[in-house]
Amino acid sequence: MTLIELGKAAKIAARELAILSTDAKNKGLLSIADALVANAQSIIDANKIDIENAMAKNIAEHMIDRLTLDEKRISDIADGIRQIATLPDPIGEVIGMVKRPNGLLIGKKRVPLGVIGIIYEARPNVTADAAALCIKSGNATILRGGSEAINSNKAIVKIMQNYGEGLPRGCISLVEDTSRETATELMRMTDYVDVLIPRGGAGLIKTVVENAKVPVIETGTGNCHVYVDENCDLEMAKNIVINAKISRPSVCNAEESLLVHKNIADKFLPIIIPELKQNNVEIRGCAETLKYDNSIIPATEEDWATEYNDYIISVKVIEDIDHAILHITKYGTMHSEAIVTNDYNASQKFLNEIDAAAVYVNASTRFTDGFEFGFGAEIGISTQKVHARGPMGLLELTTIKYIIYGNGQIR
Amino acid sequence: MTLIELGKAAKIAARELAILSTDAKNKGLLSIADALVANAQSIIDANKIDIENAMAKNIAEHMIDRLTLDEKRISDIADGIRQIATLPDPIGEVIGMVKRPNGLLIGKKRVPLGVIGIIYEARPNVTADAAALCIKSGNATILRGGSEAINSNKAIVKIMQNYGEGLPRGCISLVEDTSRETATELMRMTDYVDVLIPRGGAGLIKTVVENAKVPVIETGTGNCHVYVDENCDLEMAKNIVINAKISRPSVCNAEESLLVHKNIADKFLPIIIPELKQNNVEIRGCAETLKYDNSIIPATEEDWATEYNDYIISVKVIEDIDHAILHITKYGTMHSEAIVTNDYNASQKFLNEIDAAAVYVNASTRFTDGFEFGFGAEIGISTQKVHARGPMGLLELTTIKYIIYGNGQIR
Repeated sequence: MTLIELGKAAKIAARELAILSTDAKNKGLLSIADALVANAQSIIDANKIDIENAMAKNIAEHMIDRLTLDEKRISDIADGIRQIATLPDPIGEVIGMVKRPNGLLIGKKRVPLGVIGIIYEARPNVTADAAALCIKSGNATILRGGSEAINSNKAIVKIMQNYGEGLPRGCISLVEDTSRETATELMRMTDYVDVLIPRGGAGLIKTVVENAKVPVIETGTGNCHVYVDENCDLEMAKNIVINAKISRPSVCNAEESLLVHKNIADKFLPIIIPELKQNNVEIRGCAETLKYDNSIIPATEEDWATEYNDYIISVKVIEDIDHAILHITKYGTMHSEAIVTNDYNASQKFLNEIDAAAVYVNASTRFTDGFEFGFGAEIGISTQKVHARGPMGLLELTTIKYIIYGNGQIR
Repeated sequence: MTLIELGKAAKIAARELAILSTDAKNKGLLSIADALVANAQSIIDANKIDIENAMAKNIAEHMIDRLTLDEKRISDIADGIRQIATLPDPIGEVIGMVKRPNGLLIGKKRVPLGVIGIIYEARPNVTADAAALCIKSGNATILRGGSEAINSNKAIVKIMQNYGEGLPRGCISLVEDTSRETATELMRMTDYVDVLIPRGGAGLIKTVVENAKVPVIETGTGNCHVYVDENCDLEMAKNIVINAKISRPSVCNAEESLLVHKNIADKFLPIIIPELKQNNVEIRGCAETLKYDNSIIPATEEDWATEYNDYIISVKVIEDIDHAILHITKYGTMHSEAIVTNDYNASQKFLNEIDAAAVYVNASTRFTDGFEFGFGAEIGISTQKVHARGPMGLLELTTIKYIIYGNGQIR
């Protein structure tokens, strides 16, 4: 099938899916989950080809690990789909129906977006996960994964298409041609695709934002800060700084930079520096920070703007909260920002003036996540302001339409 | 100032505006309204230059009418701004704060989008109107109007900048160079502009969607239908069809196409055809329609897809409601669609299956409008599904950020 044909089929399937009952969608999801487990061997066989190809190309080991599927991982994917089936269906709710002076009843009805394009990289679990979230929210999906996982993706999508009992077949499709041209074409299919969600590294996301004509929801990059205020609980500050940095350094909600109020630097830096070092975190510090430990590397201008995604942190001693806010505004990516403070006014100032998707007082930035926020699922974390901001669950895969009940009103 | 300088200034102003109190924003708006009236002559003088230039270029009379400002129109603009000052401020509300099992309090706080770019054509009233809506919703705005109105726009913006008491000066700016290059540059300023709203004809909107890298909210085109069902009140159907067509044919929520159930065609067409003709509406009909009046022009395939914005209507006799829905899905622009029916199941089917921003039962499509919906203002009507759909008021010029209160939570 050409991409246009996929688009047409998806558009038709989206109409059917939009009016399918919650029970029917859940039944389809559960039958897919069972089928993935029952047919795990066919996925593992296909996955082996992808792994062999990756090894032949000398791809890094952690990339191969991300690519690998075994029975356990397939069973986890199936469990994730069963979990999505248990979530409340966002579709159909009517919000705030009002009666206008002329007697018209006007309400907002929650409806699916329509056709969602997902452009992603090497992780084949995204295939099943994203498709299941789209089905539950009544959306058809066109998946365009990376070439590294193409055989695994084909196997997964084939099972989802064949065993999605009661679901319109065109509701899940995979772009099998993984050339750059198909990605570009998908990004420009404004007649067939309602929204594009890129999932992957900064390069992929930039390419999509630069080239798409279809509306994009940008996900991803996080240069997140923890600001330790003058008046704070030092033990709490230590725990938050360490947790935000080392619990999972490769993810977007991990801390990349620590800002410390100058009046508490003498107390806090001698605590946190050895703790970071003990956890194998490389420290790149401002001139002031360097005075506390001669193993610290001087930070460059570039360091303040870098999302390391690694066991590295930049540290800066800051004049006051205003300077902390200025620094974060200048170098942050509007993802997740935290203050540790016991000062009421400082907490409110930080919450008001930091323009990020998630702003924390006295908690780790690592909580920015659909599951941690109680959404039960997540398709990505939006770092743009339009449509969705922060973790995106099922609700963020919907839109509204106005429904109006009249009895002959004219204007 | 270069565009980048405007962008930088707007970004700084947006930060100040975001935390300005409602009282301060209203005071600024009221002082602008007064200043526009007090300085009306300077606007009229500037407007005269634009009108002379337009006349020298032999621009159509109705375009010159749109361009023209006099004391009455300036006074209306000022009243519109005073009206915006009276509207509730959407900023600062915290929606649905929940307590998570780990004790974190997580809420969505309504905040401004940031910097809004408005690209529009010849109507100078948009300048004041759009800027006032942006200020009230806490957004800085960069205006890029058409070259035809540049002198009027400069005069209006100068007054708004100079007399916006207590407002950060960079919160309103005008791109004075109206070359195509500045429009394109504005569309690509992802570092400084959070969202672009094009206001104008289909050509302008297409250009913005094709060229923008900044997220766009598409407004505008409406190929709207009225479907007269088998079981309906014929007098109500007549009133709705006539009102939707002739009350203001040039606007996007006007009816362009009439669909009539075949079982009621014999009763309804002999009523509606003479009524349309009497109102100087040209009828382009399907083969079936032609039988009722020999002055009807045969409709082409193109007619079904055309937004006439004029005293022209296409008319089609339809097999049943399913065919009506299919026809609207194929040719409509997802703007406003109406059914006239007394049948409960038909009304629900139409509301469920028509995928448009506004779906009406027994009312005219002409109500799709921010004022008619009770928003008190409107910056445009979104025909896309992402971020906003249908009439956009102050609420649609906002986004949310998550605010999280903790007491030391780590993950």
